[in-house]
Amino acid sequence: MDGHHLPPSHQSPPAQPERRGSFNYDIESTDAAWRGAHTASEALMRYDDDGTREPLLRKRTTNTTSQIAIVGANVCPIESLDYEIVENDLIKQDWRSRKKKQIFQYIVLKWSLVLLIGLCTGLVGFFNNLAVENIAGFKLLLTGDLMLQKRYFTAFLAYGGCNLVLAASAAAICAYIAPAAAGSGIPEVKAYLNGIDAYAILAPSTLFVKIFGSILGVSAGFVLGKEGPMVHTGACIANLLGQGGSRKYHLTCNWLRYFKNDRDRRDLITCGSAAGVAAAFRAPVGGVLFALEEAASWWRSALLWRTFFTTAVVAVVLRGLIGFCRSGKCGLFGQGGLIMFDLSATIPSYSTQDIVAIIVLGIIGGVFGGLFNFLLDRILRAYSFINEKGAPYKILLTITISIITSACSYGLPWLAPCTPCPADAVEQCPTIGRSGNYKNFQCPPGHYNGLASLFFNTNDDAIRNLFSSVGTLLGPISDLDPGLFALLGAASFLGGTMRMTVSVCVILLELTNDLLMLPLVMLVLLISKTIADSFNKGVYDQIIVMKGMPFLEAHAEPYMRHLVAGDVVSGPLISFSGVERVGNIVQALRITGHNGFPVVDEPPLSEAPELVGLVLRSHLLVLLKGKGFMKDKVKTSGSFVLKKFGAFDFAKAGSGKGPKIEDLDFTDEEMDMYVDLHPITNTSPYTVVETMSLAKAAVLFRALGLRHLLVVPKTPGRPPIVGILTRHDFMPEHIHELFPNLHKSH
Amino acid sequence: MDGHHLPPSHQSPPAQPERRGSFNYDIESTDAAWRGAHTASEALMRYDDDGTREPLLRKRTTNTTSQIAIVGANVCPIESLDYEIVENDLIKQDWRSRKKKQIFQYIVLKWSLVLLIGLCTGLVGFFNNLAVENIAGFKLLLTGDLMLQKRYFTAFLAYGGCNLVLAASAAAICAYIAPAAAGSGIPEVKAYLNGIDAYAILAPSTLFVKIFGSILGVSAGFVLGKEGPMVHTGACIANLLGQGGSRKYHLTCNWLRYFKNDRDRRDLITCGSAAGVAAAFRAPVGGVLFALEEAASWWRSALLWRTFFTTAVVAVVLRGLIGFCRSGKCGLFGQGGLIMFDLSATIPSYSTQDIVAIIVLGIIGGVFGGLFNFLLDRILRAYSFINEKGAPYKILLTITISIITSACSYGLPWLAPCTPCPADAVEQCPTIGRSGNYKNFQCPPGHYNGLASLFFNTNDDAIRNLFSSVGTLLGPISDLDPGLFALLGAASFLGGTMRMTVSVCVILLELTNDLLMLPLVMLVLLISKTIADSFNKGVYDQIIVMKGMPFLEAHAEPYMRHLVAGDVVSGPLISFSGVERVGNIVQALRITGHNGFPVVDEPPLSEAPELVGLVLRSHLLVLLKGKGFMKDKVKTSGSFVLKKFGAFDFAKAGSGKGPKIEDLDFTDEEMDMYVDLHPITNTSPYTVVETMSLAKAAVLFRALGLRHLLVVPKTPGRPPIVGILTRHDFMPEHIHELFPNLHKSH
Repeated sequence: MDGHHLPPSHQSPPAQPERRGSFNYDIESTDAAWRGAHTASEALMRYDDDGTREPLLRKRTTNTTSQIAIVGANVCPIESLDYEIVENDLIKQDWRSRKKKQIFQYIVLKWSLVLLIGLCTGLVGFFNNLAVENIAGFKLLLTGDLMLQKRYFTAFLAYGGCNLVLAASAAAICAYIAPAAAGSGIPEVKAYLNGIDAYAILAPSTLFVKIFGSILGVSAGFVLGKEGPMVHTGACIANLLGQGGSRKYHLTCNWLRYFKNDRDRRDLITCGSAAGVAAAFRAPVGGVLFALEEAASWWRSALLWRTFFTTAVVAVVLRGLIGFCRSGKCGLFGQGGLIMFDLSATIPSYSTQDIVAIIVLGIIGGVFGGLFNFLLDRILRAYSFINEKGAPYKILLTITISIITSACSYGLPWLAPCTPCPADAVEQCPTIGRSGNYKNFQCPPGHYNGLASLFFNTNDDAIRNLFSSVGTLLGPISDLDPGLFALLGAASFLGGTMRMTVSVCVILLELTNDLLMLPLVMLVLLISKTIADSFNKGVYDQIIVMKGMPFLEAHAEPYMRHLVAGDVVSGPLISFSGVERVGNIVQALRITGHNGFPVVDEPPLSEAPELVGLVLRSHLLVLLKGKGFMKDKVKTSGSFVLKKFGAFDFAKAGSGKGPKIEDLDFTDEEMDMYVDLHPITNTSPYTVVETMSLAKAAVLFRALGLRHLLVVPKTPGRPPIVGILTRHDFMPEHIHELFPNLHKSH
Repeated sequence: MDGHHLPPSHQSPPAQPERRGSFNYDIESTDAAWRGAHTASEALMRYDDDGTREPLLRKRTTNTTSQIAIVGANVCPIESLDYEIVENDLIKQDWRSRKKKQIFQYIVLKWSLVLLIGLCTGLVGFFNNLAVENIAGFKLLLTGDLMLQKRYFTAFLAYGGCNLVLAASAAAICAYIAPAAAGSGIPEVKAYLNGIDAYAILAPSTLFVKIFGSILGVSAGFVLGKEGPMVHTGACIANLLGQGGSRKYHLTCNWLRYFKNDRDRRDLITCGSAAGVAAAFRAPVGGVLFALEEAASWWRSALLWRTFFTTAVVAVVLRGLIGFCRSGKCGLFGQGGLIMFDLSATIPSYSTQDIVAIIVLGIIGGVFGGLFNFLLDRILRAYSFINEKGAPYKILLTITISIITSACSYGLPWLAPCTPCPADAVEQCPTIGRSGNYKNFQCPPGHYNGLASLFFNTNDDAIRNLFSSVGTLLGPISDLDPGLFALLGAASFLGGTMRMTVSVCVILLELTNDLLMLPLVMLVLLISKTIADSFNKGVYDQIIVMKGMPFLEAHAEPYMRHLVAGDVVSGPLISFSGVERVGNIVQALRITGHNGFPVVDEPPLSEAPELVGLVLRSHLLVLLKGKGFMKDKVKTSGSFVLKKFGAFDFAKAGSGKGPKIEDLDFTDEEMDMYVDLHPITNTSPYTVVETMSLAKAAVLFRALGLRHLLVVPKTPGRPPIVGILTRHDFMPEHIHELFPNLHKSH
């Protein structure tokens, strides 16, 4: 939990904190503060449309927005990430002590890390393909051999059995080792890069399960995309490297301490997600644009070059390894594994008829993309209902789907007619005893089964086959190459589901290595995206909403213009004195999950109550653990704390690895001692005046990637802080719960 | 001038404003305010390195940073752009009145505009090439014919004379019509997109001169890049279309009023600059990445798709027109004009030796790139010294350079040996009577002059020739294709001068249509950029600094961490009362160039002095022009102003087109009347507390694209505003003038 919110309403309500000696604003005073602000926003609403002049009644003062979300397949608590640079005395001392050497070290490390991310992601991407091609290839060969012996039922048992075992293993490792690895992974990575941290989402165990789960799943014949798992894998690798290994597995590294903060980790994970796409499609520029367009919420110019470097490393690694495999040293891995279309026909010119056909394709893709997203949402909701019942049910669900899939892919080809082998086939036809594109199935010699060629192949080969058959359907309408039409169809559908445009465009360009079809791809994407956008959101955004993640949009919602920052501040606010009693701090940390506490100096520490800044929960815990306590409530020079602690003691530990208040013990004597919070207080938190328009406060919050935004009073003579805004306070559900009369359309 | 700065010190100092009845903080009180803040920053400096503990003495309180800059070839005043959303009563009323229809209209218009930008830029780009190929082609043919008749001196006169006339015309239209069109144009566009507006930088006259000036200049044999002029042209086109035509030339359009603000114009101009690169190199993806990497200071996800759409339109237009020209209907315009390399050899693999050669190439490119930037800076400084003397000197300078260029390009080939024509030449060799790549020059039949082929060609053909000859030099070292080496050499040099990486990479990819060389290009770019970065800045950044433009960097400088916002605030601050006397406003507008004035309500308008917000100069001028005055100093409901004015009356006019204070006349009676500023006051200006770290204030200022950042006091009992920070207050020269003891390295 970020700021000053109460735990979610379905948990037991906490006891009121002990207030002795502490400068706390209780609920009433916070209430009063927002009431003052509220008057201002009522004035704002005075000129509203006729007939709807009811005052904006505010319903309650606590934020009951859920602090939990679905991550992978499990429900777990979420935290926000801290991108703000903390400026306290300790860190300033550290800055001053940093020499040129350390800065140079940092830069070299950064580049080494992105190089490593590229190398590892490239290797994993290649390993994935190699494993799938070999496992699935073995399975398909076994089935094919049995079918050649006319032992059709045994063949089905072998085929279905292999699928079942593979699927069940995938489900089991996911359910028992890392439930966070379930699903595409892109929504989780996107949410992480937006500042939402969930337990284990990028943990080493998740990485392990993601790699092997997707290998097993794809080998089991499930139709899984490679983009999502690879993006998640890349992000996990980046996180693992950036954390200096994992303390859990005793793989730590002290020289990575510079990266122990959310800002640098964010950069690395952005590179990782770009590397993932690059590894999935061997598309380095496409990977960069994917990170820019879809994954990252914050982008800096320096990041462009760094992500590009990472994806280029991936491309080089893949190129080298595929070259190595061409010599036949990789088992059943032949040309396959990494799609590379060859549009043999160049596109010299296109007629009006072709353009019409392409526009129709765009419309179809848009409609079907929207429909796909709608159905996916329903299915995922149904799944998560089953998933909630526990791990055995997850495995059962997977097994059921595996059996259905096996039955379909084995049964359907029987309905397809046998096609005579083309005379000019480059490959052996029908393919016997090896993986290939012309599957004999039940057909007589010299013939192949088209549907079997689709189902009895690994995904990449199947896509190639699918494209060439689909493209043929449009042959009568247009003179363009069927392969090109098939590619445009894929673009159209992708535009309709994912709503990415530039990156899809560039990925397809990189797959086909033909720039001349660019205008056609753009046209089809523009149409399908526009049409699908009128139905619903993009698939990843939709999943983020479904999972309940508090995603911050880049723009403010129109209704926020009618509110001010003070309107949405929710209580109770717990603040500390600059020199605070240990007991009060411990109590506050125990009864709330707040991450940031305002520090206020009151007389005699200052002439009048004065806002010193903001202190973070994690920093308080380090200070408490180090027991830097004093007997009396006096303001010190801070040198005691500055000597006892270094800045890196306060560096952010990996997710869930910092000290916890439950693990700390204090004697009664210690509880009555005092601690000087000034050295660890961020003296430059970003603030807004309570009458600041909520829309502009939201823009500030999002543009700077904040976790806490302090709201200060406009008029003098009041306590120096009104409240803290966090991510959850900008969520539409919170605002609409507070102001049920607010028009959504405004 | 942006905020509260005095005019530049070399202008005559203004008289003190009349203070009667107005709530102004005079210099003394502002001074006191910063002195309070200064104490805080002295405390910050307490732990400084040993030996350098002298207090940070602040030298003066006014910002003497120059408010003028060199734009093109002339010195002119600069203004900042307003990207902040103004939230005042008038605009809020307008929001409420906007219906779905208007929003739809806005979206359709936006897409139509970017479509138009793409179309126009594509057409202009093609027209440029066509004109150059024809004019220069005619000139070269004439010279060639005379040389064939052995009339070498006449040939030189014809050649030099053509060049002279073309060069002089280019210089004349630039000097007399639009001096802002001089130079590359990229630094100016980059500065504009950073928020720096200069008179006429994107005006229609600039567009006209840019197009014809670059045609004449290139035809005159000057070695000019096409990227810069095309980017500037694209930006001018975007600005022209976004302004709804030009009022000066009676080409206005009322339905474009939605775009009369700096935010939407910024988006359009970003699209325009991307379109320019796309038109120069026929590289749509490269254009987008150029805009992202080099041109734009602020980027939104929505912009990606819009710029890509624009550049795709450019690509389609160029493709169509070049196809049309293939049929020979465009005079001397043949295959030329738009570079498209064909690397015939594929790159199957590269050895260690090749990699070493490429690394050497990268180092050479980096060193020469840095040297080039250094020399360019010196030459441009010398030129601007001459340019300052007036238009005739500019033309004289151009003529001198033209004569030198002509003499060199005519003279040097005489020193080159004649090469026998290759047996397998695809083209006619030597080329006689038409433009081509094998120039006979003084050579006997069957031979060609290599240098003449370089000099006696239009730029694009020359680059092709240069590449194939340069590449051959490295033949002995490496087995790679000479053409590829030449391309890598170009990348290396571009990386060393421009320091763009991803966009150069992608532009080269798009020119060659070969993705497989990507890793090599990246390697060479990485090396050359890194090396050159250790010498100096990129060429465009260097020119921006040389021209004196107050460019805001995305990151804060390290020394800013040691200062607080209150430290750099400079006086005098002029503020208005919520209901202000007309005379005071007129006086303030007359004696200062400030763009924003804080509005403060004092008793009896409020209980205590209270900051209402910020009012803009342009809005005040509209209000004064409309004479919305009252007899008495009373707070109204604002309905008077709300009825008299619409939000679009306050929309931003084109550069230099709004009402001016000098043009307004007031009677003595009017001067003693009052005006209610509340309806036009932006009630949600962004504020920081005076003790906010300057580094974090700078990040806020830059991330949100602000023009004014209000600094409010930390402690109660003081006037509610300390000062206003503008772009100029964050400039290193201002800060180092204020604090001469500040260590730059910190």
